[in-house]
Amino acid sequence: MNKTRLEAFSDGVIAILITIMVLELKVPHGSDMASLLPLLPVFLSYVLSFIYLGIYWNNHHHMLHTVKQVSGGILWANLHLLFWLSLVPFATGWIGENHFEPLPMAVYGFMLLMAAIAYYILQLQILKVQGKDSLLAKAIGSDSKGKLSPVLYVIGISSSYIHVGIAGAIYILVALIWLIPDKRIENNFVHKDE
Amino acid sequence: MNKTRLEAFSDGVIAILITIMVLELKVPHGSDMASLLPLLPVFLSYVLSFIYLGIYWNNHHHMLHTVKQVSGGILWANLHLLFWLSLVPFATGWIGENHFEPLPMAVYGFMLLMAAIAYYILQLQILKVQGKDSLLAKAIGSDSKGKLSPVLYVIGISSSYIHVGIAGAIYILVALIWLIPDKRIENNFVHKDE
Amino acid sequence: MNKTRLEAFSDGVIAILITIMVLELKVPHGSDMASLLPLLPVFLSYVLSFIYLGIYWNNHHHMLHTVKQVSGGILWANLHLLFWLSLVPFATGWIGENHFEPLPMAVYGFMLLMAAIAYYILQLQILKVQGKDSLLAKAIGSDSKGKLSPVLYVIGISSSYIHVGIAGAIYILVALIWLIPDKRIENNFVHKDE
Amino acid sequence: MNKTRLEAFSDGVIAILITIMVLELKVPHGSDMASLLPLLPVFLSYVLSFIYLGIYWNNHHHMLHTVKQVSGGILWANLHLLFWLSLVPFATGWIGENHFEPLPMAVYGFMLLMAAIAYYILQLQILKVQGKDSLLAKAIGSDSKGKLSPVLYVIGISSSYIHVGIAGAIYILVALIWLIPDKRIENNFVHKDE
Repeated sequence: MNKTRLEAFSDGVIAILITIMVLELKVPHGSDMASLLPLLPVFLSYVLSFIYLGIYWNNHHHMLHTVKQVSGGILWANLHLLFWLSLVPFATGWIGENHFEPLPMAVYGFMLLMAAIAYYILQLQILKVQGKDSLLAKAIGSDSKGKLSPVLYVIGISSSYIHVGIAGAIYILVALIWLIPDKRIENNFVHKDE
Repeated sequence: MNKTRLEAFSDGVIAILITIMVLELKVPHGSDMASLLPLLPVFLSYVLSFIYLGIYWNNHHHMLHTVKQVSGGILWANLHLLFWLSLVPFATGWIGENHFEPLPMAVYGFMLLMAAIAYYILQLQILKVQGKDSLLAKAIGSDSKGKLSPVLYVIGISSSYIHVGIAGAIYILVALIWLIPDKRIENNFVHKDE
Repeated sequence: MNKTRLEAFSDGVIAILITIMVLELKVPHGSDMASLLPLLPVFLSYVLSFIYLGIYWNNHHHMLHTVKQVSGGILWANLHLLFWLSLVPFATGWIGENHFEPLPMAVYGFMLLMAAIAYYILQLQILKVQGKDSLLAKAIGSDSKGKLSPVLYVIGISSSYIHVGIAGAIYILVALIWLIPDKRIENNFVHKDE
Repeated sequence: MNKTRLEAFSDGVIAILITIMVLELKVPHGSDMASLLPLLPVFLSYVLSFIYLGIYWNNHHHMLHTVKQVSGGILWANLHLLFWLSLVPFATGWIGENHFEPLPMAVYGFMLLMAAIAYYILQLQILKVQGKDSLLAKAIGSDSKGKLSPVLYVIGISSSYIHVGIAGAIYILVALIWLIPDKRIENNFVHKDE
């Protein structure tokens, strides 16, 4: 089983997802500011989802980098992750078109939660092949980000019906947590490219 | 002839197909549960087709892994397979939008049948180059799954007009047959990635 | 300049083109044969364009295989080819939706003609780098197919206004000419994959 | 961190962007010249954006070619560039559909400006890793094109409200500046492909 194709396929799917999201930004028929403004919520949700997919692609990268042997379990766990990510454009379009109403915000959080769980399962499958003393196991360490994120998503989903602003703030917060570089991991992973 | 490009092109096409299917999940205009529920059949058909394309990608992977030399026959047999797979999003959208009515269900089964036949032809083309004693020939063995699937598809297509539930159950059954890991094949194929 | 990325980019663009064409096959709202039948011309034009893009991808493959050094000229000639190929889905949708009327048929032929010319320019750019005694120069030989195709396209375009059937027959004929394997070329190009 | 995947992902995104732009060329319902003509502005804006994305892909290529080690900074600067490029199809569709009216023209220029800035940031990130004496630093030299382009974009954006023709002419001019091969850079970069 070829790791290169697993990476190439995942890259392809994420590249397409990140790009077709922009199709939700429908070209307005008017040409004045008044016809551009209604696109602002769609644009903002696009920015957030773009960052999320960027984070997933980035982390996927790092994690797969350590993989030597691709098992059937890794392959299907990877497809499972791609499945939930593939729903991001849908959820993004929905929150944007409805100006961040409660149900769409909760569904958006649910997609993020499922993607986070799928990512965790993929990580388990890789660790199963590599063992507890592997480079990846060390780099992940206590995996505090990975454990905190689902908790925050659940809080975000629950708070959608109290105030969508709280849910939105939480989803942005999780993205920020992942954006802040994790020096320890990067140190473990940076290699000279041959 | 370069195997890498054959794989990359196939990965690209399957990655795009698996992703544009999600465009059939049209963003609803409302933001309540009532506007989300009608999407359920579209979602279910999306899940099934996602799994099917995942299985094809997975098997394509394994099969191409053994290929050393790409003939013109392999190349066109591969394009022929991609052609039938490219119709999956259409058939998926059709069964989803029409709540699994007889004709769409039969057409969906027909696409699966043609893809299965195309896959079989591709396999024949590869075996023609590699010979009967090749690694692939051994791994395929009696090819019971490959022989059973078309028969089941034909039963599924025929039963669409009796009850679409039977057709649906059969299409799910075939997917499950392929999902269950085939230990013998995996044992023959797993290699350490260099 | 990296040949791998030129190939990967071209593969990506052609894979996307071949796949988004299928989006012209709009999912019908009805679920009976009467709602499927109007799609037949769209389907037939899809099949023809799928084969054309397959032929271009195949030939592009063979030609690039011999390239060692990518010049700026090759790069832009390649983008120029991709530009005309990118218009194929548009022309395909147009002939399909209008049941092969004269102007769409002429425009379709024009796209094919421009793509053929772009391919010829790309070939010239590659030969400029490689020289007249290169493997590619020998494999191309008198390039009778490459010289015949534009002539046939021009006849096809002109005959669109006499009878679209003649134009259609000519476009199919050119596809068949390219589909028939060119034994001499294949013999020159088949290599064992390392 | 794997440079190959960074390139493959960027190639994928740019390939998809360059291709989905063509979806703005909506298949006309009529089949006569009168129904084709209104597409002319959409087509012209497509040509310009195709060339711009081609230039970005080409330059991205050259720049990444010199990269040995991918830092977190390079990765996110690259995603930032892809973000602004991902808005090109939207802006292209908007200027085309509104026959080059002032606001769309200004927004189009703004996207180009942001993409140019993002490219400059990416260049800085790469130079930070490689140092001032690197091959890339020498090849860039005084970076007169890179410094001139944003200035021209700002003039183009400002002049949209005076006359859209000036803005359009400036955007075309910038594209031409980049299209003219920069002999010195090419000399520094051309390598034999191993």
